[in-house]
Amino acid sequence: MSAFERRLQAAWRTNNSLVCIGLDPEPARLPSAVRARPQAIFEFNKAIVDATCDLVAAYKPQFAHYAAERAEEQLERTIGYIRERAPTALIILDSKRGDIGSTAERYAREAFDRYGADAVTVNPYLGQDSLQPFLERGDRGVIILCRTSNPGARDFQDLRLADGRTLYQTVADKVANDWNSKGNCMLVVGATYPDELGELRARVGGLPFLVPGVGAQGGDVAQAVTRGRTANGTGLLVSSSRAILYAGSGADFAAAARAAAADLQAAINEHR
Amino acid sequence: MSAFERRLQAAWRTNNSLVCIGLDPEPARLPSAVRARPQAIFEFNKAIVDATCDLVAAYKPQFAHYAAERAEEQLERTIGYIRERAPTALIILDSKRGDIGSTAERYAREAFDRYGADAVTVNPYLGQDSLQPFLERGDRGVIILCRTSNPGARDFQDLRLADGRTLYQTVADKVANDWNSKGNCMLVVGATYPDELGELRARVGGLPFLVPGVGAQGGDVAQAVTRGRTANGTGLLVSSSRAILYAGSGADFAAAARAAAADLQAAINEHR
Repeated sequence: MSAFERRLQAAWRTNNSLVCIGLDPEPARLPSAVRARPQAIFEFNKAIVDATCDLVAAYKPQFAHYAAERAEEQLERTIGYIRERAPTALIILDSKRGDIGSTAERYAREAFDRYGADAVTVNPYLGQDSLQPFLERGDRGVIILCRTSNPGARDFQDLRLADGRTLYQTVADKVANDWNSKGNCMLVVGATYPDELGELRARVGGLPFLVPGVGAQGGDVAQAVTRGRTANGTGLLVSSSRAILYAGSGADFAAAARAAAADLQAAINEHR
Repeated sequence: MSAFERRLQAAWRTNNSLVCIGLDPEPARLPSAVRARPQAIFEFNKAIVDATCDLVAAYKPQFAHYAAERAEEQLERTIGYIRERAPTALIILDSKRGDIGSTAERYAREAFDRYGADAVTVNPYLGQDSLQPFLERGDRGVIILCRTSNPGARDFQDLRLADGRTLYQTVADKVANDWNSKGNCMLVVGATYPDELGELRARVGGLPFLVPGVGAQGGDVAQAVTRGRTANGTGLLVSSSRAILYAGSGADFAAAARAAAADLQAAINEHR
């Protein structure tokens, strides 16, 4: 088992949870008491982490929400705070990186060294050399976009190839057969397409999935877990962002987030 | 003609140039006199811009080189300096963004509002809704990865679909036929594959290309220009980074960069 697989197993086990909370702070949606504070994004994230750290397997800060607000320092502080408060939780930098070899090395350094993330999301369109610097870090996870949760997933990912496979199946096969030699790969597979989720689980064995699309995007939790789990009842990180972060909008937002996270945890565990 | 197309035409015309300089500052390769200074990345970029601003059509800062070094502020200062020194030069944020709808809006804000770039590179794998917030900004350019310059381009981009097209041709068709309604799209097509470059030019009419891969990656300038130009001798931004930035490594690095940029400009203009 790779260092990353051990890390992931520990993250699942600690709280008996497959829940991943996406930390996507939108300034306009922050509770007004938080919004007025100088480091509002960090303060919001801190309150969410405090309220949920015994319920989750992972946190996933989404890069754009920090970059658009000139809040890289608050992203660093958030990651530092998660480490302190929830040392076994997996920290996934959701930045969907992908660039040619010499630049990919810089992105690997950004995710794993600058931000100290345990895993990073990446885009496969540029092929293997664009992911090599990530794949080589066996202690860190490389989470490759495969079949995403959005409507535009149909535009290219679902295209049928001359050999009969779809593009997303080809990506899944490449990851399972070639790129996962260090045991540190995962696939992004959206909960909004349960048929594809089940079919991919059958296709790639125990390769773990990051499953966004439950919550605000409408994916069904029972379906996602039933179709996506592995034989031992793990194999998934089920990610929800807005449905947890903005479950409440008043002074009780953290308690509301906790309740939403606990509900998701229970709904997942019922079907594992 | 769209606001972006007018901007691009002006950029080509001002210096009679199709040259784009990639600003990819690597700390280890900066001249020692610059490396010792507190804002070394900015100081290096400033010297390059001073030395080349009458020779180029565009500058393209590559995001990873700033993110890995915690140098977002130096990226902002670099962009501000280019605006001042070369007001008609196009500024391309090379960050290859791509994420689902609600997050894509945050990335568009990052590129166009926070950094004030004229154009941004994006990845098509997630489909139309992932690019919509960029496409809607008719005054800004959206530069979509199509057939890239790296070896891994073969892994997925060259796959043959059931309808006979390759994946990269499908991306090109989608951009030319659907996504360019505001006249603000460009395609990334690597100089390292001149046959594909020529074939794509024939396929998409006047759609402008960003062409990396000359210089350090070994693409042939004459071939790239001959195959990729439009009938009026434009249609391209030919991008070079390392071959210009690191043409010299001593105190004369800026003069060496100027000479390399002038050579590239002349080599391109010879074949327009």
